[in-house]
Amino acid sequence: MQRQVRIVVPFKLKGAKSRLASVLTPEERRLLAFAMLKDVLDAIFDLGKVTILSRSGLKKEDLGRDVDILESDLELNDALNALIEEQAGQGWQFDIFIVMADLALLNKDVVNGILDAEGDVVLCPGRGGGTNMILIRSPKFRTCYQGLSYPKHLAYAHDLGLNAAFFDSFRAGCDIDEPEDLAEVLLHGPGETKSVLESMGFILSDKGRKCLDRRA
Amino acid sequence: MQRQVRIVVPFKLKGAKSRLASVLTPEERRLLAFAMLKDVLDAIFDLGKVTILSRSGLKKEDLGRDVDILESDLELNDALNALIEEQAGQGWQFDIFIVMADLALLNKDVVNGILDAEGDVVLCPGRGGGTNMILIRSPKFRTCYQGLSYPKHLAYAHDLGLNAAFFDSFRAGCDIDEPEDLAEVLLHGPGETKSVLESMGFILSDKGRKCLDRRA
Repeated sequence: MQRQVRIVVPFKLKGAKSRLASVLTPEERRLLAFAMLKDVLDAIFDLGKVTILSRSGLKKEDLGRDVDILESDLELNDALNALIEEQAGQGWQFDIFIVMADLALLNKDVVNGILDAEGDVVLCPGRGGGTNMILIRSPKFRTCYQGLSYPKHLAYAHDLGLNAAFFDSFRAGCDIDEPEDLAEVLLHGPGETKSVLESMGFILSDKGRKCLDRRA
Repeated sequence: MQRQVRIVVPFKLKGAKSRLASVLTPEERRLLAFAMLKDVLDAIFDLGKVTILSRSGLKKEDLGRDVDILESDLELNDALNALIEEQAGQGWQFDIFIVMADLALLNKDVVNGILDAEGDVVLCPGRGGGTNMILIRSPKFRTCYQGLSYPKHLAYAHDLGLNAAFFDSFRAGCDIDEPEDLAEVLLHGPGETKSVLESMGFILSDKGRKCLDRRA
């Protein structure tokens, strides 16, 4: 049986997805960020209490879901670790499950997979050394999101003597940062993000190495 | 219980990994290709009869494993589909499991995962629309490796009325084609390929967006 979780989704409201600036306007990037958040919420909804962690200004009506919004001006790790410490102070009634907001390929099967995985800490790597999801079952663990966070999280867990597991998922490993990541959404995306990209004219191309194209 | 499989690993002997030419010499690319093949063989060994499909010139003693080598000058799909037809002609005593030779993050857990998956055809996508592994349980299926092979394989299975499953794996989804893929091996590689890259001086870098560096 799965243990109860509090699911935390950090969401960057302003200037999100800057590495897509070569192919998307600021308004398109904003639409994309909200579409990805919607897909992530669809995948995690009903599996635990969901909290969106954001700078001030995010409105509930923009989300289409009845979720909590936690406004914080802290740096990401400080904000997340404050939540972990709060949970620890309350006797750890829930595990904490951190899910990045740009996992546009996520679905319920994948989320159930990580919630069923064994380990004091379950780490789901993203491309390039990131950590796209973390399931934390120990009050001792703290996040270290910056740069190559995956090896940092792994080393941190080992230093504490915690049992850290690798959660193996193509869908959850695919965070959407670079233009070529958009092709993955067109190929495998289940929901809103794919529709938004298609409505912007993006199509798959089967010519040469680049598999993303855009209609004029 | 897993059904018996014949495992086919296509291996490109000459001019492999040309997209790594900007960071590796031809001899280094050759060493890398053999290290990856060794890691793939470690992951699949004992799980079925293994056949390496190659142009002429591959020697058994270069592989360090007692596997069959099938030399063929046919184009990849023609060679694979001849094997499928041969198996079909013999009453389909084994399923056919095709595994690409550059899956340097593969391990036995992942391979057992796909062998346990349900479906007439189980497709494991790679980045950019490729198909990194295919488990074929129907004599009707044929491969279509070229360009965006994943959607082609999926459509082909659907057209035949076959039940096609998506196998979700970060490890198996990571084929090593581009320089940035080498960082994934340093981060998550279990075996020989990681050792070979380290011996060539490759290291992880935690500065900026590029996480791969090489000592002078």
